Amino acid sequence: MLNANDYQSSDLYRIRHSAAHVMAQAVLALYPAAKLGIGPPVEDGFYYDFDLGRDGDGRSITFSPDDLAAIEKGMRRIIAAEYPFEYREVSAAEARRLFAAQPYKLELIDGLEAGEVDEYGEPVGERPVISTYRQDAFEDLCRGPHVAHTGQIPAEGLQLMSVAGAYWRGDEKRPMLQRIYGTAWHNKEELEEHLRLLEEARQRDHRKIGREMELFMFDEEVGPGLALWLPNGEIIVEELEKLAAETEAAGGYQRVRTPHIAKEALYLRSGHLPYYRDDMYPPMEQENGSYYVKPMNCPFHHKIFGSRVRSYKELPLRLAEYGMVYRYEASGQLLGLLRVRGNQQNDAHIYCSEADLEAEFSAVLDLYRYYFDLFGFDRYAMRLSKHSKAGLGKKYVDNEALWIKTEGLVREIMEKSGIPFFEADDEAAFYGPKIDVQVWSAIGREFSLATNQVDFAQPPRFGLTYIDSDGEAKTPLCIHRAPLGSHERFIGFLIEHYAGAFPVWLSPEQVRIIPVTDAHHDYAVRLERELKAADIRAAADLDSARMGAKIRAAQGMKVPYMLIIGDREVSAETVSVRKRDGSQENDLAFGAFVEDVREKIGGRAAEI
Amino acid sequence: MLNANDYQSSDLYRIRHSAAHVMAQAVLALYPAAKLGIGPPVEDGFYYDFDLGRDGDGRSITFSPDDLAAIEKGMRRIIAAEYPFEYREVSAAEARRLFAAQPYKLELIDGLEAGEVDEYGEPVGERPVISTYRQDAFEDLCRGPHVAHTGQIPAEGLQLMSVAGAYWRGDEKRPMLQRIYGTAWHNKEELEEHLRLLEEARQRDHRKIGREMELFMFDEEVGPGLALWLPNGEIIVEELEKLAAETEAAGGYQRVRTPHIAKEALYLRSGHLPYYRDDMYPPMEQENGSYYVKPMNCPFHHKIFGSRVRSYKELPLRLAEYGMVYRYEASGQLLGLLRVRGNQQNDAHIYCSEADLEAEFSAVLDLYRYYFDLFGFDRYAMRLSKHSKAGLGKKYVDNEALWIKTEGLVREIMEKSGIPFFEADDEAAFYGPKIDVQVWSAIGREFSLATNQVDFAQPPRFGLTYIDSDGEAKTPLCIHRAPLGSHERFIGFLIEHYAGAFPVWLSPEQVRIIPVTDAHHDYAVRLERELKAADIRAAADLDSARMGAKIRAAQGMKVPYMLIIGDREVSAETVSVRKRDGSQENDLAFGAFVEDVREKIGGRAAEI
Repeated sequence: MLNANDYQSSDLYRIRHSAAHVMAQAVLALYPAAKLGIGPPVEDGFYYDFDLGRDGDGRSITFSPDDLAAIEKGMRRIIAAEYPFEYREVSAAEARRLFAAQPYKLELIDGLEAGEVDEYGEPVGERPVISTYRQDAFEDLCRGPHVAHTGQIPAEGLQLMSVAGAYWRGDEKRPMLQRIYGTAWHNKEELEEHLRLLEEARQRDHRKIGREMELFMFDEEVGPGLALWLPNGEIIVEELEKLAAETEAAGGYQRVRTPHIAKEALYLRSGHLPYYRDDMYPPMEQENGSYYVKPMNCPFHHKIFGSRVRSYKELPLRLAEYGMVYRYEASGQLLGLLRVRGNQQNDAHIYCSEADLEAEFSAVLDLYRYYFDLFGFDRYAMRLSKHSKAGLGKKYVDNEALWIKTEGLVREIMEKSGIPFFEADDEAAFYGPKIDVQVWSAIGREFSLATNQVDFAQPPRFGLTYIDSDGEAKTPLCIHRAPLGSHERFIGFLIEHYAGAFPVWLSPEQVRIIPVTDAHHDYAVRLERELKAADIRAAADLDSARMGAKIRAAQGMKVPYMLIIGDREVSAETVSVRKRDGSQENDLAFGAFVEDVREKIGGRAAEI
Repeated sequence: MLNANDYQSSDLYRIRHSAAHVMAQAVLALYPAAKLGIGPPVEDGFYYDFDLGRDGDGRSITFSPDDLAAIEKGMRRIIAAEYPFEYREVSAAEARRLFAAQPYKLELIDGLEAGEVDEYGEPVGERPVISTYRQDAFEDLCRGPHVAHTGQIPAEGLQLMSVAGAYWRGDEKRPMLQRIYGTAWHNKEELEEHLRLLEEARQRDHRKIGREMELFMFDEEVGPGLALWLPNGEIIVEELEKLAAETEAAGGYQRVRTPHIAKEALYLRSGHLPYYRDDMYPPMEQENGSYYVKPMNCPFHHKIFGSRVRSYKELPLRLAEYGMVYRYEASGQLLGLLRVRGNQQNDAHIYCSEADLEAEFSAVLDLYRYYFDLFGFDRYAMRLSKHSKAGLGKKYVDNEALWIKTEGLVREIMEKSGIPFFEADDEAAFYGPKIDVQVWSAIGREFSLATNQVDFAQPPRFGLTYIDSDGEAKTPLCIHRAPLGSHERFIGFLIEHYAGAFPVWLSPEQVRIIPVTDAHHDYAVRLERELKAADIRAAADLDSARMGAKIRAAQGMKVPYMLIIGDREVSAETVSVRKRDGSQENDLAFGAFVEDVREKIGGRAAEI
């Protein structure tokens, strides 16, 4: 997990922050009338927002690609001049005089003076001091920190990356500014490594690979953020669901299936309405009560628990469902499979007594670790998200003692588990504390995988009880868990993690049979049939294309094994195996190959 | 398939029709001020609707249970008197005089005079003659046919069954009348057989068995007609889906997965809006276009076909999905699982050239026959549903030549298949002819299983094409098919068909292990573990209840095999098997039992 405090006290943060100021100075040299927005450091670099005004036809002026080169050149000149960064505190009135020609800055000064926002327009807790930093003749509203002088910005580690439109203060009703992104590093080597990783990420982009491997699609008439799984993607979906079903069956879960819509009454009972309404699709309005598509599965499982009298002998009752939920994410937030509006969740709810909580919660943590190992997630972190005192009765169920007790219980379980974790206040679910799980992909991309929550509020709302051994009706606790998150997000992440080169068990096509000429077709077709009979996903490529083209086609689809079939293989009834990684093994007995592949599939092996 | 013409010309039809008149006469003897609705023969009997007026408090007067006995007694007196049924034709004016005190009849006379409806208020093609039948002093608006005199109604074959509320002309805005149902047969034996079958059907009622076996539930807060599958039901759902996935994989289908909601634009393109709107849940209204929950999967599959350029080499392309669709059936139509608002359909769409149509359509028919055999549906019928000339451009795509050609093609395929079928005009889908499939359960209940449709209209609407071998873009035909219908309806039907005693492969719990005393628990637990390891759904009943009670509990859940474990079994490491049907086999080798059960599951055997 990225630690914001560590970054803000790092020299890279100061270098990037200073580079942003230098860029603004260079832009003003090119466009003296430019109005400045904000220019903060961000992960891996910095940006600054500019309003270049309008041309004679009333159209917004935008940066040209040539401008970026000119701005970068200007920045290098400023860097070479080694101008010191000078700090001073100013009154609001003085700040207004300084930035009299900069309307966006004036708006920020209003906020600073009122004590509402910082110089980036972000809400703050206490009234800030108004300050500026100046290098050369350029002075900017800023609290720092910066490097000592512009010469400390490594010119060789600097590069401007792109221009994009960005609404002022993220508000689509405010003007659209021009945002220039740059990156800055200690030296040329670091910059090149960063650019290499970016290219790697571009190559691994799940949208690019998803298109090439025909895994999923979106369609404007269906709606943004609603994925359609193509046959190849559906295979991965089903393999993941099978994995979950197997581990859950072994863990004593029972599967259920619930509708995708329900009456408003259900979400009023659960408490999702009215608080969660903004995250839901609008209602289907009816005279006898509106319907909503479900944003979560919990209330349906609670209904199943509550469908008859339960005995303590039935506890822990673990109800699992790969349930599809719909949440109305803002369209600007949507990103391929990683941020969607329809999520099929690896959901389950465990109803248990307080005495069972530790064992059940630990078993869930074990499940996480099992999956992390299976998928080769070496780096992960867990966060214990707690309530805040101030949020009691607002964001959180108003029972402080219960919060403190439950958080203590969860903390104890986490400590015993040996899994590294840290704690965060004011990040809990409204019904109890939760564990948020972050994992990093093979190329270091961070991903919020799932949450794992203890719920002491929903069971009483649904009137859930069980008859304990003493004959008394008691209220169970509920654990919400979804270790694999959702199909959509998890597969989006896996595509990047594996760069599309899935382990055999997850590969849509496991074996491609490539006959060298038409004369080898019969044998190829026979192998295809026998592989399929052995439950291996195989296809013979009987196209008239040349062998090289067929191999490239299979490589493009990241098929783990290619069987190259020529005269020798036909006469000896063998196969020559070319793996996805380029390695090749000739004249294998076909039966031995089949056994090897079956074993790798059965054991869900990482290697091919 | 019930042939309406045959029934209407049968003597049972005349007997029941005459019994309805006799019942009305008997009711008027008890309640002289009763207003009469209509009284037609129906399947297995007849009914008549009455308005008894209101009591002093303004409440509708209803029949008491005692009334039924009194009315039946009155009917027997009328039957014994052998009054002849006398027919006459009357003018509308004369009819109005005759029925001056009967407002509902007057409304019917208006319709008859206008030539719109018959005496039951049903729309008619040509202006009917107004006629009456009279027995004794009772005269009713009626076109017959009737028996010659009341003595021809077999008093011993007659019984009044129930009273229910029914809106006048089925319109919930009109008055609620009291409907008395009766049944009538040739003799006492036939009546008793009918009552026995009714009791059998009651015992097999899928709602009763579903509750007892904990298969599914409904909940008012979730919404009427939206089933929640409990763990036992979910097992059956998954077994059926697995069956479909297996047969479809073998048939060259590819599975896909699509969202449950989509923008209005999609249904406008498909043509479902505006025509199908009444059958859909209301829209989720949005500024940028409303969303609807999907009433069918087709448009989504069309989008997948159209997601990239297709080659003739990819055809036939068969896309399958167990897709959940939502249709807003009128609440009065809902009936357990048999009429629901959420249906998970065994859906698939086959895109093919005209040359492939016969082979593909025939393969679908073969699939039906395979399923019929597997589930033991001995009795089934298919109907070729065709367009009507009058409906062209209204209910049906306006291309008569294409209709006639496609219907001809389908007829030929049906004839070659050897499956019995009949033809019906004006019953097609709007985009092409269809085959409707009816099956009968073990106790003879008729069920509309599925439809199988040829669609020549949707592919062009979605701009679907493929590049043929001649390099030209052509439009494919589309076959819609769902041989297992939907999970909901099919399982509802199977519950009745099997009376809950499912074949082993479909049984939620396959083996129940019943230790005679606590001393046999360890062995029972070991057997449970070993059965589960062999993928057999098993549970040891370690409750403190007596053995007899445990056996009854397992019988109640229709578990196919009970293993009774006592001293002898523990010491010899054998099992004694008691089957669901009461038969028993002692001292079997456990391994042999496991092998036998595995074989029955693997082969989806009907017998246990």
